[in-house]
Amino acid sequence: MISLNYKTNFNSTFANRGMSLENDLNETNSYYRTYDIALIYKKPTPIRIAKTDYKHMRITDGFFESPSTLDYNGVYKGRYIEFDAKETKSKTSFTINNIHKHQIDYIKKAIKHGGIIFLIVRFSTLQKDYLLKGDDLLKFIDENERKSIPLEYFQRNCYELHIKYSPRLDYIKAVDKIIIEK
Amino acid sequence: MISLNYKTNFNSTFANRGMSLENDLNETNSYYRTYDIALIYKKPTPIRIAKTDYKHMRITDGFFESPSTLDYNGVYKGRYIEFDAKETKSKTSFTINNIHKHQIDYIKKAIKHGGIIFLIVRFSTLQKDYLLKGDDLLKFIDENERKSIPLEYFQRNCYELHIKYSPRLDYIKAVDKIIIEK
Repeated sequence: MISLNYKTNFNSTFANRGMSLENDLNETNSYYRTYDIALIYKKPTPIRIAKTDYKHMRITDGFFESPSTLDYNGVYKGRYIEFDAKETKSKTSFTINNIHKHQIDYIKKAIKHGGIIFLIVRFSTLQKDYLLKGDDLLKFIDENERKSIPLEYFQRNCYELHIKYSPRLDYIKAVDKIIIEK
Repeated sequence: MISLNYKTNFNSTFANRGMSLENDLNETNSYYRTYDIALIYKKPTPIRIAKTDYKHMRITDGFFESPSTLDYNGVYKGRYIEFDAKETKSKTSFTINNIHKHQIDYIKKAIKHGGIIFLIVRFSTLQKDYLLKGDDLLKFIDENERKSIPLEYFQRNCYELHIKYSPRLDYIKAVDKIIIEK
């Protein structure tokens, strides 16, 4: 039997959502590790196991759980880094509902503890990527009634990231700016 | 069907190895989160999925992968914290083989990037817990031929942790000392 990572064989409505941004980030993190720039990983998908075949040490029934934290974390210059990757097909705004309530709570806590917390948001139709700081996200939610963040907000307030050959999505330069601002 | 976490239903030779230390640490991390002291989690166990039932969104075949990093990570006072928990029944020494080769390589990298990296080692028969700094572990391996670290080494060079009611294993005070030393 060939063993596949779930991202490569799970059905498209679930797994492919955000897959290409995820691939770009995995490539980028792998580059950062290879060149000793940062040590950042995607966390394993939490799985709840319902049944196991003890004899063969295999899982025979299980299901995916929704993560209560963000998807990527690690260390850069001694700092704690954590972020999530989100994609939208919209050409005009990013819906805040894309972020789970418990993730918002988590972002607040992680910032309080001094972590460098952000989202990488891809407007896939526009082929634009932005780094949105956790602080800015919380501020936007606090100060606005509306349930989506307009593209202009990203253009004015976020770091734009540009796709290149390698590393694919060089977000660590934006993290450097965040560190300097602190 | 009742869904069980794998730690509670997997066979004892596998899952119970180190379970009580793991429970103490989970309780401690939960305390730290509740009282806003630190934000530290056990990483999900990496699982490789071989087969899924798409219709019911369930995993029908999968197996455990060995992690290439350490088991716990998070943020404390802005610092990146990562550690692993190891238990030994020995009354005299801790066998270095308990730590996988790729974990040693990982510890080197994580220290290089400025992370606060350590092991919590339980001598379960002696009911003694020690925090062994990653730097000290690497130094011991470099300078010694022997494949195990004697108990006296822990007594002389490590922070001893004492079990108490709550938080169960208050390791963050030792982390404070590490930060001061830096």
